Amino acid sequence: MSNVPPNGEWSERVGRLQEKLASAGMAGCLVTQNVGIYYFSGSMQAGYVFVPAVGEPTFYVRRSLVRALEESKIRTTELLSFRAFGEQLRADYPQSFPAAEAGERPLVGSDLDVMPAQLYLKLGEVVPGARIVDASTLLRTVRSVKSAYEIGRISEAAEVVAAALEEGLAALKSGMTELELMAIIELGTRRRGHIGLMRMRGYNQEIMTGIVSAGEAAAEPSYFDGPAGGRGLSPTSPKSVSRRPIGRDEPILLDLGCCIDGYVIDQTRTAVIGQLSPELEAAYRVSEAIIRQTERSLRPGATPEQLYVQALDAAAEAGLAGNFMGFGKDQVKFLGHGIGLEIDEWPVLARGFRDPLEPGMTLAVEPKFTFPGQGVVGIENTYLVTENGFRTLTKSPERLLAL
Amino acid sequence: MSNVPPNGEWSERVGRLQEKLASAGMAGCLVTQNVGIYYFSGSMQAGYVFVPAVGEPTFYVRRSLVRALEESKIRTTELLSFRAFGEQLRADYPQSFPAAEAGERPLVGSDLDVMPAQLYLKLGEVVPGARIVDASTLLRTVRSVKSAYEIGRISEAAEVVAAALEEGLAALKSGMTELELMAIIELGTRRRGHIGLMRMRGYNQEIMTGIVSAGEAAAEPSYFDGPAGGRGLSPTSPKSVSRRPIGRDEPILLDLGCCIDGYVIDQTRTAVIGQLSPELEAAYRVSEAIIRQTERSLRPGATPEQLYVQALDAAAEAGLAGNFMGFGKDQVKFLGHGIGLEIDEWPVLARGFRDPLEPGMTLAVEPKFTFPGQGVVGIENTYLVTENGFRTLTKSPERLLAL
Repeated sequence: MSNVPPNGEWSERVGRLQEKLASAGMAGCLVTQNVGIYYFSGSMQAGYVFVPAVGEPTFYVRRSLVRALEESKIRTTELLSFRAFGEQLRADYPQSFPAAEAGERPLVGSDLDVMPAQLYLKLGEVVPGARIVDASTLLRTVRSVKSAYEIGRISEAAEVVAAALEEGLAALKSGMTELELMAIIELGTRRRGHIGLMRMRGYNQEIMTGIVSAGEAAAEPSYFDGPAGGRGLSPTSPKSVSRRPIGRDEPILLDLGCCIDGYVIDQTRTAVIGQLSPELEAAYRVSEAIIRQTERSLRPGATPEQLYVQALDAAAEAGLAGNFMGFGKDQVKFLGHGIGLEIDEWPVLARGFRDPLEPGMTLAVEPKFTFPGQGVVGIENTYLVTENGFRTLTKSPERLLAL
Repeated sequence: MSNVPPNGEWSERVGRLQEKLASAGMAGCLVTQNVGIYYFSGSMQAGYVFVPAVGEPTFYVRRSLVRALEESKIRTTELLSFRAFGEQLRADYPQSFPAAEAGERPLVGSDLDVMPAQLYLKLGEVVPGARIVDASTLLRTVRSVKSAYEIGRISEAAEVVAAALEEGLAALKSGMTELELMAIIELGTRRRGHIGLMRMRGYNQEIMTGIVSAGEAAAEPSYFDGPAGGRGLSPTSPKSVSRRPIGRDEPILLDLGCCIDGYVIDQTRTAVIGQLSPELEAAYRVSEAIIRQTERSLRPGATPEQLYVQALDAAAEAGLAGNFMGFGKDQVKFLGHGIGLEIDEWPVLARGFRDPLEPGMTLAVEPKFTFPGQGVVGIENTYLVTENGFRTLTKSPERLLAL
């Protein structure tokens, strides 16, 4: 699979957004976030992309125009100044941005889930003739279905993280700290082109290469919007690795990913030096059973909510409802998530997500069980929804890694 | 210097914000960003910190309450639900959040430069009795003056990056790619406790460990809000390292930092395998002269604007105005920046920053020159402003590293 996007990639993306804009009665969409700007233009330089409901989109570039002109696949022009941006939009798209006196005020969508409030308020001043409304649902829905090019990039990220995990496992020994093990795995992903972080849309959420955490440290709860947090290095980095040495006979959570050419993979394996207690081993087997059950249902037409609810039922039947996807107040209410340019894409395998799965969606499914004082066990694969079922994108062998 | 904050650290921080709130006529400040939440509470769990103009602050925690209760230095309580958050605030702080019918609508500041617009709009609905206004200027001003504890953390980060740079230089050889060199330096910072990224406040800005870039690749412009960008790995990571091999006789820009216990350091050294052309070597000497000139002025009372303007003058006198801090349209309009929990703190050494420097401010000063097709040369140190002058926090020896 080539890592150069084919002709048509960008017009296809723009076209799918335009269909949704028309259905939603929006005159267009102003995209302000770097990831969205790249998705619709092919360039991640600083500026704004405007996609009208009908017609050609434009990338207004603040910096670097030189570079955006090389990279962008859509009409690209200089953003003259923020103050003049309203006039520039009005000249280029008079139907979306009429003069304030016109009085009709068309709806213009934007990525209000990520755009800072300060920018939102300033935009309202420069385009008084339009009403800026939240289009994040539309944007996330458009991005939830991946092209062949995008699936290729996620697959490449899967190869990279699998190779780095092998290097980490080869070096793993009792007494090594979580941080030391993670540093080896990160070296492996970085050398192969990991950009250094996995982009995450959620406010205040951060993830670089995932979580390596063992024993009771892995079971420590955290702000992080995932089933496991980890102790972390300090209150200023309160998740993932700590300086705790990894011991024998405790579960080692290896929840790892990387970002290659902008696209993210996410996978989890559980390892142990020695052997797990019967209770934890049994819970690991339940996570395997849940991921197999999920695979059997994973096809177009199934709903994310159904996948989540049947996993909850399976955990409850195994007597592990209280340990599933975190513990106590710190349980998260999902089984998995869409993945692509960001790690927290749509759909979420959670209640409320009732639109059926479609071919081209990519999902990380991560049944995990938390035992305070003991650790976290579980498994996570990234899948592609196909016409008839699914394809596993994760490349690492799937087993309890007893060393 | 202990890495445990002393008693009084948090009440001092809260007190300084309260003074500013009172002067600004604000009833309080709602802090929503993870870095700000940590700054005022000692914990970075998910939730909101409210600091009233008078009285005790509260940390309302969404997740993990268990962990926030262990870490937080201020009153900490569960955030019951976002819908009920308005009532919770009204009950705890009736003067800041009166019922909507009361009609007075006190001003409540918030971090609108980072808070997503969607959250801003929802907050407006749950606290109809208050007017949420931008307090980012206040928050950034309070944070610009560091405590002894904070200076200790930045100094520790300086030790870590200096050690990692030594490891990178020991491994550097002609033909190695920028990415390979960076991976070695990152391994060095990570093993010593770098959290993996340097937090940056600016929207759409990202920096993990800095920039390693050589020759013409370093001179490629980028969206990044700094004097040098670098080619990067792809249009989805369009700055810092590329897979270009590092050659002989070209400038190697080593603009590096790390984040230890939440605090960031930032420094730049220029290296060369062989020797620089006379033109680039002369420009490097001008960057040294500008940093010496800046040091002579670096004391309480000097203004950031003065430091910037005199650097501009020095660059112009050397005939390098067009190469200073980037090239052409891609020049940035500053000489340096505050640094602490974030890499882009206040004050910025730029026009418009006319409030005099104060003891306790920490500043990265980074005179650099860009030569398209040839590379970037320059130097950067992080300084503490003291009662009588400055102290250099950067630990790496300062010279043109000819290898």
